[in-house]
Amino acid sequence: MRVSIIGATGETGQSIIDGLLKSTEPKYVGYHGSHSSCFTAKARGAGPPKKKGIHIVAADLEGPEDALTEILKGTDVMISAINAGNLMAQIPLINASKAAGVGRFIPCFFATIVPPKGILKLRDIKEDVLNHVKKVRLPYTAIDVGWWYQITLPRLASGRIDYATTLVTDGIGGDGNMLSAITDVRDIGTYVARIIADPRTLNHMVFAYNELITQNHVYDLLEKMSGEKVKRNHISVEAIKAGVAQMEASNLGPESPEFYELIRFQYWHSWAIRGDNTPEYAKYLGYLNTKDLYPDIGFIPFQEYVQEVLVGKGKSVYEKSEDLKPLKVE
Amino acid sequence: MRVSIIGATGETGQSIIDGLLKSTEPKYVGYHGSHSSCFTAKARGAGPPKKKGIHIVAADLEGPEDALTEILKGTDVMISAINAGNLMAQIPLINASKAAGVGRFIPCFFATIVPPKGILKLRDIKEDVLNHVKKVRLPYTAIDVGWWYQITLPRLASGRIDYATTLVTDGIGGDGNMLSAITDVRDIGTYVARIIADPRTLNHMVFAYNELITQNHVYDLLEKMSGEKVKRNHISVEAIKAGVAQMEASNLGPESPEFYELIRFQYWHSWAIRGDNTPEYAKYLGYLNTKDLYPDIGFIPFQEYVQEVLVGKGKSVYEKSEDLKPLKVE
Repeated sequence: MRVSIIGATGETGQSIIDGLLKSTEPKYVGYHGSHSSCFTAKARGAGPPKKKGIHIVAADLEGPEDALTEILKGTDVMISAINAGNLMAQIPLINASKAAGVGRFIPCFFATIVPPKGILKLRDIKEDVLNHVKKVRLPYTAIDVGWWYQITLPRLASGRIDYATTLVTDGIGGDGNMLSAITDVRDIGTYVARIIADPRTLNHMVFAYNELITQNHVYDLLEKMSGEKVKRNHISVEAIKAGVAQMEASNLGPESPEFYELIRFQYWHSWAIRGDNTPEYAKYLGYLNTKDLYPDIGFIPFQEYVQEVLVGKGKSVYEKSEDLKPLKVE
Repeated sequence: MRVSIIGATGETGQSIIDGLLKSTEPKYVGYHGSHSSCFTAKARGAGPPKKKGIHIVAADLEGPEDALTEILKGTDVMISAINAGNLMAQIPLINASKAAGVGRFIPCFFATIVPPKGILKLRDIKEDVLNHVKKVRLPYTAIDVGWWYQITLPRLASGRIDYATTLVTDGIGGDGNMLSAITDVRDIGTYVARIIADPRTLNHMVFAYNELITQNHVYDLLEKMSGEKVKRNHISVEAIKAGVAQMEASNLGPESPEFYELIRFQYWHSWAIRGDNTPEYAKYLGYLNTKDLYPDIGFIPFQEYVQEVLVGKGKSVYEKSEDLKPLKVE
């Protein structure tokens, strides 16, 4: 099986490449676009992956579709883990994939379960992309993975886990009692490797996640394991709804840094207030579920991840990202 | 099971009511809106259905949602066969259905298989409605039925089937060799009665159709059965694409009569050129199929319908509609 990847240097792309290389499938060929606007390298400050079995191919998503088509010929699975600011750059990639006879296209979803329209602007755009896939009748699988472990933990007063936490995670949405699906970013690739080799997932959405947890449970666990008391900064439903209204009233798109300050309210509204990010809602929306498809699959338990972070072996995501700034909520 | 219907006096609504009354389910209660803009009565010039087991309840879709909610309490299945010009009037109906605890909402689809966005303006709007259903997490089933027998036959030179044909059907899209699904409008209700009583169809799209046929086959059959030669007016791919471009460039909405002149080009483009209206594409888009679900179900064969029309027992649809005017294509 020959796999091509756009966005191979981003957090999700790296996990996918690791997952593919570890998997038992006979052959994988990695690939990513050279056009700087087309992948998430800037989020890591890293260069392209230099690993065995990975072939780097230059491609310009804004160039002629014919050239892209040539590059994609022979590709069985095209995976897009493109930067969130460039989701619409997938349109020419989809057209070229169709023309090249790509067997399965994986659009950039890789986030929480959200309804197709009207709750999360990023998901609205992803739905537009998926609708284009359907219009050109390209075989596809859309994969959502819930919220990452790596942006779930709050800081500790001692500061000892600051190295592995981000400001994204500050605050508890509402009462903190809503169950929501979480996944270690390192496990995404394991799921993707299984999903793209599975004929049952063709032309379906798939929900891949590790555990279901509430924010209160996250805080309880961290307090117990660290021995420190953690300040609980509840973001009220009213504050979240005000943020959502501000986002809806704005014309901000994902290419703008301010977008990421406001979209956090839409995320909170979705998973902490509405409770969208659950297997039940995913099933209602038509997703298949990795717990049903691959009951044997292994993953990193959240508690193990917390322990890693506490002993200094965690790793921060979005290290050098300029997109994510502190979020101020009263 | 208690069923409520909006648009009960339209072609689809009448078929559904007949299908429900004929079915073996214990109890059905019909219902439709009294607000004139909310149902298809004008297409028939007919009053509300007066049949055993049908209860007429007045409802104003543009009135307060609370009043609608009151009316809908106790409804197991809410079926919308609303006039195409008023599809967005389903939004308050969906909100009220959710508030009333309706067990299954059937949005107004009841047409050919088309991708969710970008090919047929009516389907674009239906997708917006379905996305609202999904956002409020209302249990649903969306049912498409292909193209009606009743708008499939061309006229005969003798004029003897004019009484049962409409100008909608004039012309062969492209080379006329594309397979497309057709259904007798009278069978729609039979399918709907089975589908809404079936737990397997909950939160799915379902494709219900009678036969697959090409336009050339339709003309061949009519010539053979009538003994008359039928003029074949091919609408070229170029003419269809020009019509599609005109539609896309216009700001026409389904409330405008001109909309229905232009949307025929989008329909032709979809089922005659792209070949969207097939079980294969429906499966790709995630539809279940009545041929798989109910292999035992009976329906009127197309040949039998043609015979009916030839012996003077056919019935025209859209008899008094002002929406449908002759379509001039060079």
